[in-house]
Amino acid sequence: MSIAWTSRYALRTKAVKGSIIRELLKLTQRPEVISFAGGLPASDVFPIERFEEACKKVLEEHASVALQYGETEGYKPLRDMIARHLRRYGVKAEVENVLITSGSQQALDLIGKLLINPGDRVLVEAPTYLGALQAFNVYGTEYVSVPCDENGLRTDLLEAPLRLGPKFMYVLPNFQNPGGTTLSEDRRHALVSLANKYGIPIVEDDPYGQLRYEGEHLTPLVVLDRENSPGDGQYTVGNVIYLSTFSKTLAPGLRLGWIVAPRPVIAKLVELKQGADLHTSTFTQVLAYEIARGNFLDEHVKRIRSVYRERRDVMLQALKQYFPPEVTWTRPKGGLFLWVTLPEGMDANELFAEALKENVAFVPGDSFFASSDQNGHIGRHLRLNFSNARPEQIREGIRRLSVAVKAHLVDLHVVAP
Amino acid sequence: MSIAWTSRYALRTKAVKGSIIRELLKLTQRPEVISFAGGLPASDVFPIERFEEACKKVLEEHASVALQYGETEGYKPLRDMIARHLRRYGVKAEVENVLITSGSQQALDLIGKLLINPGDRVLVEAPTYLGALQAFNVYGTEYVSVPCDENGLRTDLLEAPLRLGPKFMYVLPNFQNPGGTTLSEDRRHALVSLANKYGIPIVEDDPYGQLRYEGEHLTPLVVLDRENSPGDGQYTVGNVIYLSTFSKTLAPGLRLGWIVAPRPVIAKLVELKQGADLHTSTFTQVLAYEIARGNFLDEHVKRIRSVYRERRDVMLQALKQYFPPEVTWTRPKGGLFLWVTLPEGMDANELFAEALKENVAFVPGDSFFASSDQNGHIGRHLRLNFSNARPEQIREGIRRLSVAVKAHLVDLHVVAP
Repeated sequence: MSIAWTSRYALRTKAVKGSIIRELLKLTQRPEVISFAGGLPASDVFPIERFEEACKKVLEEHASVALQYGETEGYKPLRDMIARHLRRYGVKAEVENVLITSGSQQALDLIGKLLINPGDRVLVEAPTYLGALQAFNVYGTEYVSVPCDENGLRTDLLEAPLRLGPKFMYVLPNFQNPGGTTLSEDRRHALVSLANKYGIPIVEDDPYGQLRYEGEHLTPLVVLDRENSPGDGQYTVGNVIYLSTFSKTLAPGLRLGWIVAPRPVIAKLVELKQGADLHTSTFTQVLAYEIARGNFLDEHVKRIRSVYRERRDVMLQALKQYFPPEVTWTRPKGGLFLWVTLPEGMDANELFAEALKENVAFVPGDSFFASSDQNGHIGRHLRLNFSNARPEQIREGIRRLSVAVKAHLVDLHVVAP
Repeated sequence: MSIAWTSRYALRTKAVKGSIIRELLKLTQRPEVISFAGGLPASDVFPIERFEEACKKVLEEHASVALQYGETEGYKPLRDMIARHLRRYGVKAEVENVLITSGSQQALDLIGKLLINPGDRVLVEAPTYLGALQAFNVYGTEYVSVPCDENGLRTDLLEAPLRLGPKFMYVLPNFQNPGGTTLSEDRRHALVSLANKYGIPIVEDDPYGQLRYEGEHLTPLVVLDRENSPGDGQYTVGNVIYLSTFSKTLAPGLRLGWIVAPRPVIAKLVELKQGADLHTSTFTQVLAYEIARGNFLDEHVKRIRSVYRERRDVMLQALKQYFPPEVTWTRPKGGLFLWVTLPEGMDANELFAEALKENVAFVPGDSFFASSDQNGHIGRHLRLNFSNARPEQIREGIRRLSVAVKAHLVDLHVVAP
């Protein structure tokens, strides 16, 4: 008999649905559409010449390593480079604390696998990164959402949710996706201290930390946490798992991310990664190492910052110029996104359809909330990406979007009492 | 307070242990050791020049695709190439039936995620691929093992286990890892017919199918199965999920595998893959496409076959020359491994320690059995890899191993009554 596959699927797959965003993105791929929907780095900043030189070097000098099976932990020179980089920011990590993953997304999946039993709670920001929800959902996660404001997660609202005993907190302190907000220094201290008080770990996701366009670098949670664990020279204890990636600084097509954690946690994650994909591509790891080394990545990141800073500024200026005063937005100090809030009664999903008619696209905010009806926020938000489109496209796209917004706003005033 | 991580781990992680093999491999990396332990392709057959040309082309002509985020399903020209390749072998697959994975190992993980509830049974061969056990263990799998002989899985023993209602059967029909055995044509028909009769899907893992050194290509299970589903031009039904990889034909460092399945199954796997790693490296996908295209891969595989055929022959000849008559082994028609059986009373784990003293290494067979005390097989088997070492090393390594075997055999005769 022919098999009815749906009847054979595991229960966990019921919680999983394809990302609405990835489906939306397919709608926005007509060339006439200016899209603020994706989270794509600008292709024009990819350092292609450096890639060419590095490919040549890798194949001439390291082919038997780069094309062969490798260690699950990752390519050691790359892990060592990452550890050194982190030490510059005060993270006292050694090579043994670094696990290379197939993008940060795999880090989220492995963490879900490691920590979440069906029915366990995970504390997340509202809004939060959609991909984390996708990774955690499959493990039967229940969520506790805590709202963000312009200074990031509202740590003043944390104690009651922490008393519910979440398995961990998932936090994006820098230029959050989707909010564009940054956790203030005071709140960082408060957060780490609360984690310590309640014994609840923090997963600190930092894909954008290097992309700061103004102001001073703020101390990562993992550093504040380790200041509470003095004398542990081996980095075997600690309450924070720290994640980052080359996707925003080098190229997302490499699929290279990393996890920094206490050694016993890394050891357990390595076991899980073995079963998940043996190891991340040795070729892309050796390549990334050869590209990044000798200070190249630092110089390259400076260039990315200047390109994206301009794009952010153009978008902010265009929003100010074209958008009606009822609409507000965040002013990110870095990263790739800003977050627009429509006046009450407006619906970002309806706006999406109208915007597409104007040949401009964004992501409606609903997908970024773990729980529906989160503080009435649902339906009123847009995530706008400013890294991918060129400045003149950004200006024109925001103009087009303002047309849709204004039309929608008129409808609202006509319909509403 | 500092977190006791072990107390926070999910229940599923208890079933997971790092591969003994990967730990063993670390012992065998001294340069004086001749190792038959790994499953590594020969580095000297990597087509490095072709890689160099392809890297250049990818970066000059396709950088904005190859370095950017891509579709979860995979790079379409590559999926299309794979579908065309499969059609040559009678698999009527279209591009929509192909999902690119981060190595075949990820395919196994996604299949476990898709199909296995805790406590579900999976039917496996005894012995079977260790990495599959690692991938499935995390989902709380119970195993039903069915023995293999020199013609592969004993399909005559299948009906009783199938009545236990396993979620699926996991089978390696060609040059099995670790056994080196190939499922005969008759048994292929029997297996597909039993799957059909009991409505139990087959996961057909075929990493080595291209590496046949003698005899005729046998029909894949997925082809026999689809002959039972006539008129389904869309390939939306079928009882077989088919897996393969570029790891053995191109380079394992790329981490590129693929799943072929009915469209609705692919759609569900795509959802799971989104959460697991968004997508496989676009760079390695575009690169593999540029390398493989224009018949290059077919020609290259011919070269690999001739190199590995010689190594297999040298190993078989050396075994015959050096090993005592009490020891037997399989005679693989392809692939990377052969499987040695020691006489009753001998212990492959003890032999491993003695062999290391002789500077030669292998993998003891225990790890390849899902259940302990499987038909008394445990402890008496060695997996030997013949693809990685050069012919003169193979000859010398088998000679060294025979020294350890003979010493062990003498101990046995002295100790045993």
